[in-house]
Parts: sequence; structure tokens; C-alpha cells
Amino acid sequence: MKAVNVGVIGFGTVGTGVVRLLIEQRELLARRLGADLVLAKVADLDLERPRTVAVPRELLTSRAVEILDDPGIDIVVELIGGLNTARDYILAAIERGKHVVTANKALLAHHGNDLLAAAAAKGVEIAFEAAVCGGIPIILALRQGLAANHIRELFGILNGTCNYILTQMSQQGISYAQALAEAQVAGYAEADPALDVEGTDTAHKLAILMSLSYGARLDLEAIAVEGISRLDPLDLQFAREFGYRLKLLAITRDDGHRVEARVHPTLIPREHIMSRVSGAMNAVYVTGDATGPILLYGQGAGMMPTASAVVSDILDLARNLMRGGAGRVPPLGCRTALESTRLIKPLNDLVTNYYFRFAALDRPGVLAQVSGILGNYGISIAAVTQKGREVACTVPIVMITHEAREADVRQALKMIDQLPVVSPPAIFYRIEDPHLHSARI
Amino acid sequence: MKAVNVGVIGFGTVGTGVVRLLIEQRELLARRLGADLVLAKVADLDLERPRTVAVPRELLTSRAVEILDDPGIDIVVELIGGLNTARDYILAAIERGKHVVTANKALLAHHGNDLLAAAAAKGVEIAFEAAVCGGIPIILALRQGLAANHIRELFGILNGTCNYILTQMSQQGISYAQALAEAQVAGYAEADPALDVEGTDTAHKLAILMSLSYGARLDLEAIAVEGISRLDPLDLQFAREFGYRLKLLAITRDDGHRVEARVHPTLIPREHIMSRVSGAMNAVYVTGDATGPILLYGQGAGMMPTASAVVSDILDLARNLMRGGAGRVPPLGCRTALESTRLIKPLNDLVTNYYFRFAALDRPGVLAQVSGILGNYGISIAAVTQKGREVACTVPIVMITHEAREADVRQALKMIDQLPVVSPPAIFYRIEDPHLHSARI
Repeated sequence: MKAVNVGVIGFGTVGTGVVRLLIEQRELLARRLGADLVLAKVADLDLERPRTVAVPRELLTSRAVEILDDPGIDIVVELIGGLNTARDYILAAIERGKHVVTANKALLAHHGNDLLAAAAAKGVEIAFEAAVCGGIPIILALRQGLAANHIRELFGILNGTCNYILTQMSQQGISYAQALAEAQVAGYAEADPALDVEGTDTAHKLAILMSLSYGARLDLEAIAVEGISRLDPLDLQFAREFGYRLKLLAITRDDGHRVEARVHPTLIPREHIMSRVSGAMNAVYVTGDATGPILLYGQGAGMMPTASAVVSDILDLARNLMRGGAGRVPPLGCRTALESTRLIKPLNDLVTNYYFRFAALDRPGVLAQVSGILGNYGISIAAVTQKGREVACTVPIVMITHEAREADVRQALKMIDQLPVVSPPAIFYRIEDPHLHSARI
Repeated sequence: MKAVNVGVIGFGTVGTGVVRLLIEQRELLARRLGADLVLAKVADLDLERPRTVAVPRELLTSRAVEILDDPGIDIVVELIGGLNTARDYILAAIERGKHVVTANKALLAHHGNDLLAAAAAKGVEIAFEAAVCGGIPIILALRQGLAANHIRELFGILNGTCNYILTQMSQQGISYAQALAEAQVAGYAEADPALDVEGTDTAHKLAILMSLSYGARLDLEAIAVEGISRLDPLDLQFAREFGYRLKLLAITRDDGHRVEARVHPTLIPREHIMSRVSGAMNAVYVTGDATGPILLYGQGAGMMPTASAVVSDILDLARNLMRGGAGRVPPLGCRTALESTRLIKPLNDLVTNYYFRFAALDRPGVLAQVSGILGNYGISIAAVTQKGREVACTVPIVMITHEAREADVRQALKMIDQLPVVSPPAIFYRIEDPHLHSARI
């Protein structure tokens, strides 16, 4: 039987999962490939740490170069994370004519265009299913399954840490700090959670999904990003009272001329299937012009789900090695990538529905003053509630608006923050609710 | 620019969608393929019927053989449905060395093994993403995305007609006959709905999904099938009261030795994400040993969603034609298909939870007699309700059981039906509720 040889660089959590699958599912993988998928070598700086899989000592090395320089290795799997060293290893693998599998979304978002260009020049492939949503085959779905569609819009819950924290805050009414601490204990959040909770990781993944959706170059800078670390549980409760759930959504939408590209806490209707995505689960809700809406949902992280995606990529590359056909599917779905940046709609041009919360001093006429300013900026109110719950000597006024322009909203809120009867800053979140668009009261 | 030529046999609903996509998305498809995907010919017996797309007259023919015999055509798309003629056309296309795309689940379920063998012998491919769940890329997900997994279980809502009828019955409390009539008016059910409502269409699709899940030959006969046409809205209401929804589920599960293969109305917990799949939507909830549960959800039928799947297949085959690599992914996911039949668990061996409804005459001691018989067969009760609602001089007793063996259930219900204090037949449905398994009262 023929064999395809795989070298794994990075024997951490995901690396361990990949090694386990290559060993434990060897027979299944051979049945699928018609050849043996061989774990040829595993490199990691730390070879002593106990791991949940036994690897013959002679396959282990502390020097990645032993994989990169081994002419017998066909596919290199990069699982060390980070930017510089990972990039160097991938470029070295490409240079030596090896195909590459990576789960490194940060690297792809920052340097993906260069890496893909280098691979194309050398005639090798880079596969990255594991970079977005772990075990959910969303890359495959966008690049091949929905290939006959123009993608109209895509909503993603792409970061399990944030979704776990928001679920805990929403269901238990606890603070962000408490929920984060619980997530850290449960192993869903890192000691330094910034990359997750500030929305950066979600933006990395959205950059990849946007490229696949539109057949455009990766463009991380185009994405407006706001995280969840300043969320007040009060707003999750008010969102609930209006029939919404608050999620950290990655959103992109093509209006035919420009595309939206944004990551921020977003209110979605309770009835929307995305509001059922709770805990550490991930989901992508994508609308093609032919398919209509499609949801893919599952575990977006963790050892074995992510390893499943890595090994599906290894198998795919191995199939190309066995039968020819390398490069049959371009990495971003199209042979000619569009330049992305000219197409982006600036956040200030966004037109959507908003949730506002003002901390009003308990004096008569506050609502009139606030709504007067909103009216001056063409912002009309779909619903309002002024509850008796006093917070720091103020009473919250909560509003849901009809469609308004982001630039107008920012100007109006700046004016409102200057009113003596409110305690700044005004809080605002964006809403995705198709039923709100048309109605006006 | 190079070109790949496509002939479409069957210019009905899906055929029209495919023709529209090949024409309207021609530029997008060319960007993806790096070659032109050309609609070369369209065959249909009726060329006069008005359609939502304009096709140059010279591309139209009433004779399928003009496509089959055209040496310039690379890919033949079969969209006429039915068994015999469709099979003849596909075999003729294979014989002439053409690759085939079909949406014909009935044909695949009945004759798929022979067709796949004929294609393999001739070195051509048969693709069938559109045969299951319309625009949802479930074939791609099982065959490639989850390729590193052993599939542990799969639940499918695979027939939009049935799901629409059940949703209407559940939400409006109307009868099956009323809901069917509404579905026919809304265009979700055929004039003769038997293939849908008796579960046959769902079984066809499950046969395909099982083959892909296990890398086994297609085996329609292995599947136990029960439809929805005898459902009483009373049972949907009682299911709700116990916290369940009733869905027509396709179920397969691998216990490591044998696999379950069944299609029947099933109670699932209200909180399960599959219970949110309402109206004509389709969904597949599949658990791989590495990925854990994954959900794919979307429109399972209709002109454009189904056409999207057909065209994604055309593109995939065209990529193999352009770059080599035909046969790189075996049609059922594995190069060596397992024989399926020896692995099937007979329905009588099934161990699961049950919902029972007995029509009890309003006399003392009924519950004691019924539960006595159940106890004799080792069937223990998790919950019971005896409501005052009188139906035809009887009072319904509804029970939820702990895990029981199907053969025991059938025997016990046969005994209960002979009691003078109940009005036969006893109604029973199976429950899929992971939380019920362990608890006992």
C-alpha cells in the first residue's frame, strides 16, 4: 500500500488530538484514502510533558527543522500558534515543496495573503479548516458546498469563550468579571483572555470567512471590532425583556455594492435559531442567494473537534497527492481574488436598528429631551421602557430604534451625553432583527 | 479560456433552477473554476411550458439522446426523477464516459450500488449532493468534512412536507388531514403525498446518509419506516405537556457492533436544537467521535436551494476534469464499502424510551392493570398522566417510560390491548432524550 507521510509541528492540545486521530483512526483513514496516512514525525520543544497518547520515542523531535528538512515528509501540520515562528516554519515547508495544514487563524488573518501567494508560486497547498469553528466544516461549506451562490450575509458566533461568558451572564444575571472567572475555572477562557473577549479572535475568523464568501483577499483591517469586556448584565436583562438575546456576532453582508464587516455585541430575536447557540458552542448562519439561510453549528474549539478538522485537511491534501489535482480548489474559493478594501462599508455608513440605554436622573422631561435629540437626527423609536430600577441615583431609559445611520446615532448620543439630566455615557448596541426593519410607530 | 460542457436532462423545477444558475452565475462559476462552465443542451419532453429563465432555442431538445450521444458534453445532469428512465439515462451517460450529477434519491436508494459500480468500472463519477436536504451541504460534510470521524449517531429531519405538517398540527392543534390540505395549498405537499408522509422519501435519504456515515453499501431494506399519516393531534399536545416536540426523524446510531436504522415519529426534548427546526426546514444533527455533535440546517427543497447543490456538484466534477483527480473522493466516502446488512440492529432489539397513550374506560383500577402488565415485561414508568379529557367515552392515560426493549413493548401493548378496561389500539412513539436514560422512579 502506498503511504503519505505527515509531520506535526506542535504537540500541544490540538497537536495531541491530531496525533491521536492519525494513530487511532489509521484504519478508517486508509479506507478513505486508499493509502496509508502515516504519522512520520512530531516536533515540540517540550517532549517530557505527559500527554494522552503514546508516541514511539523515535518519532519525537525537539527540532522542527527535522520535519521541514525530511524529504520523505509530504504534508507539514503547523500547530504551534503565534505569528513569527509559525510563519517561518510554513514558509520553509512551502519552500521545500511540502503541503501545509494549519489551524492558525491569527497568522492567516495577518499574513494569509503572503502565505497563499508563496504556496501558489511553489504549486503547493495550504489548508486551514481548523482555523474557524473547530470541528464544524464551515470552510468546506463556503468554498465548495455553496460555490454556486453569491453570499448575501453571514452571522457567526465564532468564539466559544465569549459565548460561554455571555450565556452565563444572561442566564444567571452575573457580572462580566464573575462570568469570566467561571469560564477560566471551567477551562473555557485563558489566563489572559484579551484576544478572545476583545473580539480579536472573532475578527481573525471573520476575515477568513469573508474572503471565502466573496472570493476576496484577506483584509483584517477592514473589520470594525468591539468586544464584550465592558458589557453590563443590565443590558442582557433588558435585551431579554424586549425579546432579544445578546451575542458577540461576526457580521458581514453584501448589499450588492459594498460589504459590511463588523464584530460586536449584537441583539438578535429570541426566536432566531442563532439565539439557541449557548455555552461554548459556535455557529455560522450564512445566506446564499440560491440556498437561502443555512446554519452550521457545533463545537468550535477543543482538542478533538479541532483535530478532526486538521485531519480532514490532511486527508484532502493526501487525496490530491495520490490522484493529482493539487490546487483544484483555490484556497479562497476563486482563482482570481478580488481586492477587498475598496468594497468595505465604513461603520459610520451602517444602517441598522439600535438598542440604547440612558442613565436618566429622575426628573420630569428627560424622555422628551432625549427623544427630541434623537428626532433631530432622524432616529425614530420603535419601543421604549423607563423602569423604576434605580442604579447609582439614576433610572435606566431603554430604547429600541427603527433603522438609523450609525453616524447619526453617534452624533445624537454625543449630544444626549451633554444633557444635564442624563449621566453619560449612553450605552448602545446594534440589533439584527429582520422584523423591525419596516414597522414604524 | 477552456470550457466544460454540461447537458441537463429534465427541465422541471430543479432543472430550471440549475439552468438559471449556470446562466446567471456564469461569471462567478468561471472565477471559481478557472474555465467556463457552459450550458450546452437542455432536454425535456415539454419544451413549450413557460419557465422563469430564457434559454436559446437551439440549446433545447425533446430527445435526451441528443445529450447522451453528444461527444462534446462532459457532464450529464439527470433531473427527471423516477426510477427506470432515469436509470437508463444515467447508465447510458456512464457508458459513454460522461460524469453524472443527479438529485434522484429514490433511484440512488433503490439502484445506487449498481450505478456506482457501473461508474467505477468506467472511471467516471456520480455526484448527488442534491439528493439529500437540498441546499444543505450534508453529503460534502459527511464525505469530507467529518472524514476523520467514526459517526456515532445521526438524526435527520429530511422531509420538508412532513415537518411542515407536523409544525402546523403542533402549533395550531389541527388534524393531520387539515394540515395536509394546508400544506398542499401552500405548495409544500404533492397531490399524492404518500411518498412523503409515509416516510419513504425520508428512508431514501437516510439510506444515503447511512452509507456515507459508515462507508457501507446502500441498504434501503434495512430501514424500519413509519410515517405521520396516522398521527393524532392529541399526541402532539401531550408530547408538548411533557416537554417534548414530535418530529419525523431519520435515526441511525452505531453502538460499536450494530447500527440502528429507522424512520418514525419521535419525541425530542423541547430544549434540543432539532426541536427548533420548524416549517418546511430540514436539518441533520450528526455526532462524530471526534467532533461531537454538529448541526446542519437549511432549506431542504425548492428550486434554487436544490439547484445550488446540483451546481456545486457540477463544479466539483468540472474541477476534476480540469485538473485531473477524478475519483479522488469515493462516492460513499471509503474505497472499500462495507456490506451493510449484517450490521443492522432489528427494530425488535431497539432499547429506548417510549411514549404510550391508552384510551381507558373510566373505571377504577385501570392504571394498576396497565402498569402491572408493563411491569411484567420489565418496562418501568418515568412519568404518567391521566387527564379528565374524555375522548369517545374514554380517558387518555399517557406514559413516558424508562429504557425498554422494543420487542417487550410490542408484547406488553398487545396484552394491554386485550384488557376489557382499555379501548385498543394503544398508541406508542419512541423518544430520543439523553436525560431520560439513567433516571428511574
